[in-house]
Amino acid sequence: MTRTIGIPLDDDARRIAVDHLQPFLVDLVALALDGKQLHWHVTGPEFRPVHQQLDEIVDAARTASDDVAERAVTLGIPVDGRPATVGKESQLPELPEGWIDARDAVAVYVAALEGVIERARASVPALEVEPVSQDLVITILHELEKQLWMLQAQLR
Amino acid sequence: MTRTIGIPLDDDARRIAVDHLQPFLVDLVALALDGKQLHWHVTGPEFRPVHQQLDEIVDAARTASDDVAERAVTLGIPVDGRPATVGKESQLPELPEGWIDARDAVAVYVAALEGVIERARASVPALEVEPVSQDLVITILHELEKQLWMLQAQLR
Amino acid sequence: MTRTIGIPLDDDARRIAVDHLQPFLVDLVALALDGKQLHWHVTGPEFRPVHQQLDEIVDAARTASDDVAERAVTLGIPVDGRPATVGKESQLPELPEGWIDARDAVAVYVAALEGVIERARASVPALEVEPVSQDLVITILHELEKQLWMLQAQLR
Amino acid sequence: MTRTIGIPLDDDARRIAVDHLQPFLVDLVALALDGKQLHWHVTGPEFRPVHQQLDEIVDAARTASDDVAERAVTLGIPVDGRPATVGKESQLPELPEGWIDARDAVAVYVAALEGVIERARASVPALEVEPVSQDLVITILHELEKQLWMLQAQLR
Amino acid sequence: MTRTIGIPLDDDARRIAVDHLQPFLVDLVALALDGKQLHWHVTGPEFRPVHQQLDEIVDAARTASDDVAERAVTLGIPVDGRPATVGKESQLPELPEGWIDARDAVAVYVAALEGVIERARASVPALEVEPVSQDLVITILHELEKQLWMLQAQLR
Amino acid sequence: MTRTIGIPLDDDARRIAVDHLQPFLVDLVALALDGKQLHWHVTGPEFRPVHQQLDEIVDAARTASDDVAERAVTLGIPVDGRPATVGKESQLPELPEGWIDARDAVAVYVAALEGVIERARASVPALEVEPVSQDLVITILHELEKQLWMLQAQLR
Amino acid sequence: MTRTIGIPLDDDARRIAVDHLQPFLVDLVALALDGKQLHWHVTGPEFRPVHQQLDEIVDAARTASDDVAERAVTLGIPVDGRPATVGKESQLPELPEGWIDARDAVAVYVAALEGVIERARASVPALEVEPVSQDLVITILHELEKQLWMLQAQLR
Amino acid sequence: MTRTIGIPLDDDARRIAVDHLQPFLVDLVALALDGKQLHWHVTGPEFRPVHQQLDEIVDAARTASDDVAERAVTLGIPVDGRPATVGKESQLPELPEGWIDARDAVAVYVAALEGVIERARASVPALEVEPVSQDLVITILHELEKQLWMLQAQLR
Amino acid sequence: MTRTIGIPLDDDARRIAVDHLQPFLVDLVALALDGKQLHWHVTGPEFRPVHQQLDEIVDAARTASDDVAERAVTLGIPVDGRPATVGKESQLPELPEGWIDARDAVAVYVAALEGVIERARASVPALEVEPVSQDLVITILHELEKQLWMLQAQLR
Amino acid sequence: MTRTIGIPLDDDARRIAVDHLQPFLVDLVALALDGKQLHWHVTGPEFRPVHQQLDEIVDAARTASDDVAERAVTLGIPVDGRPATVGKESQLPELPEGWIDARDAVAVYVAALEGVIERARASVPALEVEPVSQDLVITILHELEKQLWMLQAQLR
Amino acid sequence: MTRTIGIPLDDDARRIAVDHLQPFLVDLVALALDGKQLHWHVTGPEFRPVHQQLDEIVDAARTASDDVAERAVTLGIPVDGRPATVGKESQLPELPEGWIDARDAVAVYVAALEGVIERARASVPALEVEPVSQDLVITILHELEKQLWMLQAQLR
Amino acid sequence: MTRTIGIPLDDDARRIAVDHLQPFLVDLVALALDGKQLHWHVTGPEFRPVHQQLDEIVDAARTASDDVAERAVTLGIPVDGRPATVGKESQLPELPEGWIDARDAVAVYVAALEGVIERARASVPALEVEPVSQDLVITILHELEKQLWMLQAQLR
Repeated sequence: MTRTIGIPLDDDARRIAVDHLQPFLVDLVALALDGKQLHWHVTGPEFRPVHQQLDEIVDAARTASDDVAERAVTLGIPVDGRPATVGKESQLPELPEGWIDARDAVAVYVAALEGVIERARASVPALEVEPVSQDLVITILHELEKQLWMLQAQLR
Repeated sequence: MTRTIGIPLDDDARRIAVDHLQPFLVDLVALALDGKQLHWHVTGPEFRPVHQQLDEIVDAARTASDDVAERAVTLGIPVDGRPATVGKESQLPELPEGWIDARDAVAVYVAALEGVIERARASVPALEVEPVSQDLVITILHELEKQLWMLQAQLR
Repeated sequence: MTRTIGIPLDDDARRIAVDHLQPFLVDLVALALDGKQLHWHVTGPEFRPVHQQLDEIVDAARTASDDVAERAVTLGIPVDGRPATVGKESQLPELPEGWIDARDAVAVYVAALEGVIERARASVPALEVEPVSQDLVITILHELEKQLWMLQAQLR
Repeated sequence: MTRTIGIPLDDDARRIAVDHLQPFLVDLVALALDGKQLHWHVTGPEFRPVHQQLDEIVDAARTASDDVAERAVTLGIPVDGRPATVGKESQLPELPEGWIDARDAVAVYVAALEGVIERARASVPALEVEPVSQDLVITILHELEKQLWMLQAQLR
Repeated sequence: MTRTIGIPLDDDARRIAVDHLQPFLVDLVALALDGKQLHWHVTGPEFRPVHQQLDEIVDAARTASDDVAERAVTLGIPVDGRPATVGKESQLPELPEGWIDARDAVAVYVAALEGVIERARASVPALEVEPVSQDLVITILHELEKQLWMLQAQLR
Repeated sequence: MTRTIGIPLDDDARRIAVDHLQPFLVDLVALALDGKQLHWHVTGPEFRPVHQQLDEIVDAARTASDDVAERAVTLGIPVDGRPATVGKESQLPELPEGWIDARDAVAVYVAALEGVIERARASVPALEVEPVSQDLVITILHELEKQLWMLQAQLR
Repeated sequence: MTRTIGIPLDDDARRIAVDHLQPFLVDLVALALDGKQLHWHVTGPEFRPVHQQLDEIVDAARTASDDVAERAVTLGIPVDGRPATVGKESQLPELPEGWIDARDAVAVYVAALEGVIERARASVPALEVEPVSQDLVITILHELEKQLWMLQAQLR
Repeated sequence: MTRTIGIPLDDDARRIAVDHLQPFLVDLVALALDGKQLHWHVTGPEFRPVHQQLDEIVDAARTASDDVAERAVTLGIPVDGRPATVGKESQLPELPEGWIDARDAVAVYVAALEGVIERARASVPALEVEPVSQDLVITILHELEKQLWMLQAQLR
Repeated sequence: MTRTIGIPLDDDARRIAVDHLQPFLVDLVALALDGKQLHWHVTGPEFRPVHQQLDEIVDAARTASDDVAERAVTLGIPVDGRPATVGKESQLPELPEGWIDARDAVAVYVAALEGVIERARASVPALEVEPVSQDLVITILHELEKQLWMLQAQLR
Repeated sequence: MTRTIGIPLDDDARRIAVDHLQPFLVDLVALALDGKQLHWHVTGPEFRPVHQQLDEIVDAARTASDDVAERAVTLGIPVDGRPATVGKESQLPELPEGWIDARDAVAVYVAALEGVIERARASVPALEVEPVSQDLVITILHELEKQLWMLQAQLR
Repeated sequence: MTRTIGIPLDDDARRIAVDHLQPFLVDLVALALDGKQLHWHVTGPEFRPVHQQLDEIVDAARTASDDVAERAVTLGIPVDGRPATVGKESQLPELPEGWIDARDAVAVYVAALEGVIERARASVPALEVEPVSQDLVITILHELEKQLWMLQAQLR
Repeated sequence: MTRTIGIPLDDDARRIAVDHLQPFLVDLVALALDGKQLHWHVTGPEFRPVHQQLDEIVDAARTASDDVAERAVTLGIPVDGRPATVGKESQLPELPEGWIDARDAVAVYVAALEGVIERARASVPALEVEPVSQDLVITILHELEKQLWMLQAQLR
């Protein structure tokens, strides 16, 4: 289902790029959904700052997922961010049900972010074949890693 | 896992409200994900207006899902908007994979919206027991139905 | 000339709703036109505050007329806000021609607003069959009645 | 019902100006009402861009009608923009009732605009006697003719 | 001291509405004053988020008190929000003097909010006679209860 | 209940400052409450400008009360702006109940402002011991006296 | 003291234009100064709307004086807006000293505006030789005459 | 290639207007390109103010070129602003290659502006047949001549 | 022509304050007029930065003159900022007619500013009797002296 | 004509970079001019969305051309964006004269964009010697390719 | 190295003022640098609110340092805010290297702020000779002491 | 003092990155301090544009220093931007004391910028091990080099 696109890129490069962008898209969509889930259920004295920071990360993840998906289709290959796909293919650790203490929320979201970052970092060398996609992944990593620092700084 | 909340509402009313809000939350999250999927893959001469309108509906659905989830936890009962839950429990018709012509995109999203609206409308009478939640559902219906009109108007 | 619309509402409810929205639309369009007519022709020491308040009410009436018409078409039934229709069907008291003293302008516009409000209030119980339209009418009444208070407060 | 106004203009010039401004006012008010009527009832694949452009023209027509009426009263002569007057004196072709396909909507609104522009252009030479009013009509023509171009460009 | 107002409402309904709006007004004014008192005197490691959240609730309470008072006078009946009246008739638990630890501040303000919400909820059924006032109370409850959730979430 | 604060100020100066700030705080809170009471109940042809100006003064008084209270706690000494305290200790003339003609409203609010200004002016020399507080009181006087001028200018 | 300027305009046209722009500049600067004088000294129940409207006219007059002066220097001929020149050459009726009732303030400012407008209107035909300057004067007249209407409307 | 347009204008007038608008369009596009060229290559102590002013003129020229082209197509006749056309038909003096001292940059751009203004001024009388286009050219001249003054003022 | 004002200030203090505010008002109005005169006539390579800085000082002087005049009337004593008064009483050195080189413009405006500042500084001790006015003069001096520094820095 | 610049880059790298930036600049300027030409002449039912998207691309191309030219001069080497150079050196396919159907406009602009992107992509490896320029080209490619996707999506 | 400045101030006053402003400048620059250092290295559950508040104080300190330095040069005497000077002359307690727990960060920054405030307060009486500088120091103290309160409130 | 961070990066890469980021941080902080020092002490006819440009570079340097420090701590290694460290380790040429002519100020700041850029450029290849940090340094270089061009362009 590739569309013929005017970008002068051989099909292998095109395919490699999307092979890395598709799982990144799923990671980012799942990260946004999980961030909202924690945003709603966090409790404890740190409720307010954690509730707010989670919303910032959700915004970052949503913007990033839009950029990743649009990059893939720009390369002429569709991606898949449908609910069932995200539900099945998400590699993030499953969140516990219901209320969650702020410190636990930070810890589980740190774990989620670490996974997303690890997988995205692993894509960077392979994306050498398509420098625009590579640059996009590096830009998103910059933002996600900054958020990771600010979450981790809350853990002792 | 109910938290004791200061709102003077008997437990039945509380439970009834959340029983209607939980599936509405899943519908709204899935509606947003599907809207983005179409936003990325739509093609054809009507690409631009459809691409833009889908994004407006995604924004409306995201805001609505946040309001619904926050209303539920305000009533002291957790909800579930995690990726796996949304993936399994979404009642929206599954979108086709890949590229989709603008007119088909409008048609499948009309069908998705109709389902969400039908289920939400069916909740309104039961929510008589909790007027704040009832009012919230009516407000969201107003927005979703307006979007439905503007999509349907494009079909012959 | 009803369009098939996905909102699960029986045809009677649909028809009842639009039967109340159509005359409300005419009232609101006429209210906006009359408000402008007074805005242009008001005189006397209170010129400025009355001139400004009339413009605020015109804005409120225009927004409300748009919401009412869009609600009706969302229900699948066309409405009629054409000049000839508004000219013939307006139930507002006819304004005097030409210049009008600020206190008289307030008095005649109070009378116009009272009529619009009385007719809209009479619609509220019947709109029980379509809660979104009912909620919209209540919201518009809130605004119009607040403006009525602020006009009436100027009369002794 | 002329008010004595400090502008040094003989009564004939004053009267000529308002004789051209009064029908222009009716044209502009009717144009705004008809634009909204089409904005609500347009259908077909081009729904969204036509729906939006109509709203832009309605805004332009409303602003222009306000400027025209305020120019007339500045010259000391009242005008008439009341619903019954607009209903009776509008020279625009009557719109069809109910739903209208986008291409038909564009065609009927092109016809309406052409009439308004033709009548306004015919006023320009006569307004030589009152250069401020003449300049205002030219400014409004600039905007209306630009909108006419952008509507006509959609017709084949 | 009722003013004759054009809203078609019998005097009983008018009186019932204001009988519920007057104590709600006192509650909301007192809630704003108490929120500021705590905003100034809160201490402890959670100072900043609690200090900020209190200010948000004060803003919400001020806006709500304005809406409630203006709704009452719109119904033609004066209300009373004077300092002595608020001082005597406030039903909120008296705040302790002086500095207060953030967690205690949250606890006492939760108690205050619970009281306000309980009394407002008890008004909702009686306000059936005046749907605009009823809708206003429901809208304010939505906001206050959301703030209550976000405060309570900080308590263990 | 003094907290040890790092500002190098002897306890007498600290105490003198707060002894002048506490009654000023009560004055400003009461001024805001009375301003709103008049804002809601004013009537007569001057309704609109008086209604608006009162709201501006309420905003100024609220901002000033916040600044005064925060200055006091910055000096390490708590203040008291609770409803009962304001109710009992307000030195403003009691407002009449219910509706009030615009000119009477201006007159009673002029009297209230005059009292607040007189008491604040009397504090200025004593605050020589704490120049930051003195500067704050002078800044607030600047604003309140300007508002007094603009109110008094309406009286003959 | 003419500078050689690239605009292809013969020296007579250049001189005629500036001969009309120089006194218009003095009129506009004096109008702004007088408007401020009245803005500060107006009294009476209409204080607030008159105080505000005067400031709007001052803003309009300042902007217009800047445009007129910059047009003249663009034509290569200096103008003179120095205090002594404005003081001596102002053709506006001298304002009374000190406090002035709002209605008197409106009347004296109407007289001032009428004079400025009369002189500017008399320039329009002569400026035919320099259409950019002519268009500027017409544009300023539009604004000044609108303000004149809104002032005169307050007089009976 | 004329399109039939609803504007009541005979073909001669239409053709005359576009015959003046087409070279003006080329002048404005070339003026913008040359302004950028100088903006990039200017040097010397006056770098910054000249660099900034050039960008302001480029913005003005781009806006003007858009207005001129849209006016022509509104009259039903296409124009030509393609790179090759602009490159061949530009009547502006050719800029020197490479770096240019600020004072030289001002001088060469003054010469370019003078030419554009001279040609546009020569069009004004002929455009009497189409007053909207004439008014547009006068408006653009106002802006260009103001910029010319501010450039020339820098030359001794 | 003193109005009875509620500010508790003996008549001597009131009179002393206005005796210093009246000449300061004339200075500030004249400073603004002279600033504009230079803004229009400045020439030379430094045209642009000087032209812009003069406009900033004009804005500062206008705001300051408004504050000074409003402070005086707040004290119950009228001031005089009429064109003839400013023309006769201005103590600023008379500007040369016509074009002026940027460096000369800076030098003459430095001289003007120095005079205004010197006279205002001389008022500060006398204003001890009215601390609000004293504080206002100090605030304006802060701004004027900063502008003086930035002008003087351009002179060698 | 190289200027000595403090950036530590050997002359070869400097020259290579500018050798790739100069033709990219010409491409971007021509792309902006052609985008405007189509923006003015597009016709057909898709007029509005195509007209708007073209303007977005023109904005992107203008910003990119400014960045590219400023990067080159930052490296100490002048570039050439003069009208004659752009006219002669543009490698974009020549646009047809006059009116153009929206679908044809999309097709010809897709071809133009494809060429620009192809040439820019070919520069990326060579720019390894100057990573800032390389990063800039990649950033511009990201934007241009996204626009290409959104244009191509409209073609079948 | 004093420049002759037009402000009428004897050299002693000038010198005294700058003798107090120079060390205040160093304090404020060092406060900003230390605030950033802590902003980057803070850890623990209170990370987010402390991280944000530090940034607010850094902004306040930067603005204050700019105002202090510009006040000194306005008096005609240079100051010294170079890195080596700030490094050597800073009187703030040296911060620990590396990561720091939020509560420790608050404590060390409280100590730093206390020192800055103590030294600035000690300057106030001496600055009596130059009231503009004195007023500036008082204004900055107001802000710094408010921040001190909000930091100290977090310590038990 | 390394914190365990979830970013999958070996310790060598982490250490190399921070070894390049630490001196860059010191450079950027010193650049900002020196920029302000010049901003305050610059003199001569070019005062205003140089004064303003220096402030723009200070803003850029502050933002860059924040990004660099936050990148380092994101990698789990603290940095050092304390006053004493910056004072001792700054590699920028020491600025002269006191007043400085604008052209000298430009020259010394060009030298400072050249040094910072040279050292940062030397880091780029080594940062290949950590692409996010490398990309950040390239982005900052882009901005600093553009500022360098705009400064150098002022030198002959």
